[in-house]
Amino acid sequence: MPVTHVEDMKKFAAEKFQKVNLFDTERMFCDIYCFEPGQEQTSHAHADNDKVYFVLEGSGTFGLGDEQIEGKPGTAIHCPPTVDHGVVNNGSERLVVLVFMAPHP
Amino acid sequence: MPVTHVEDMKKFAAEKFQKVNLFDTERMFCDIYCFEPGQEQTSHAHADNDKVYFVLEGSGTFGLGDEQIEGKPGTAIHCPPTVDHGVVNNGSERLVVLVFMAPHP
Repeated sequence: MPVTHVEDMKKFAAEKFQKVNLFDTERMFCDIYCFEPGQEQTSHAHADNDKVYFVLEGSGTFGLGDEQIEGKPGTAIHCPPTVDHGVVNNGSERLVVLVFMAPHP
Repeated sequence: MPVTHVEDMKKFAAEKFQKVNLFDTERMFCDIYCFEPGQEQTSHAHADNDKVYFVLEGSGTFGLGDEQIEGKPGTAIHCPPTVDHGVVNNGSERLVVLVFMAPHP
């Protein structure tokens, strides 16, 4: 499926934030992450992969190593290999983040 | 620079569309492409790389192989290796597209 639209793919759940895949190849993936207020992606790192977070809707705090970054629509964050990163939706709106990772983990 | 904001990076020029790099590593790059009305990226292909176009602002037509795709904010398009792809801003507004490519060409 080479074409999709984020409005058709957004999905939220009360239990935890949702990862929705848009594109997946041997070389990379592209997801959206959908957070209800209060939900978070726990801090973690990847040994060999770059991740990019791009905020589409809402706001949240992105941990990146020792930094805490306030994200809003249009904020782009690069998480290099081995650097801890995570996301908390501490806003009052739903948070939607475009996520790109390469190489595919 | 691990954090940036698209509003601070957008750049347009009368001569041709502008590519503005957000992040660049050995493994991938993330750019924004900024088109004035009427500007285009000529159709081309990459032998071994995935590209993702994600429309941030405006509208345009994306060629992908034999398909012509109408893109608007939130439209995501995957261009696989060897498939011709290009962009025309045939709308009346400026077009801004987030672009990911992996592996780095």
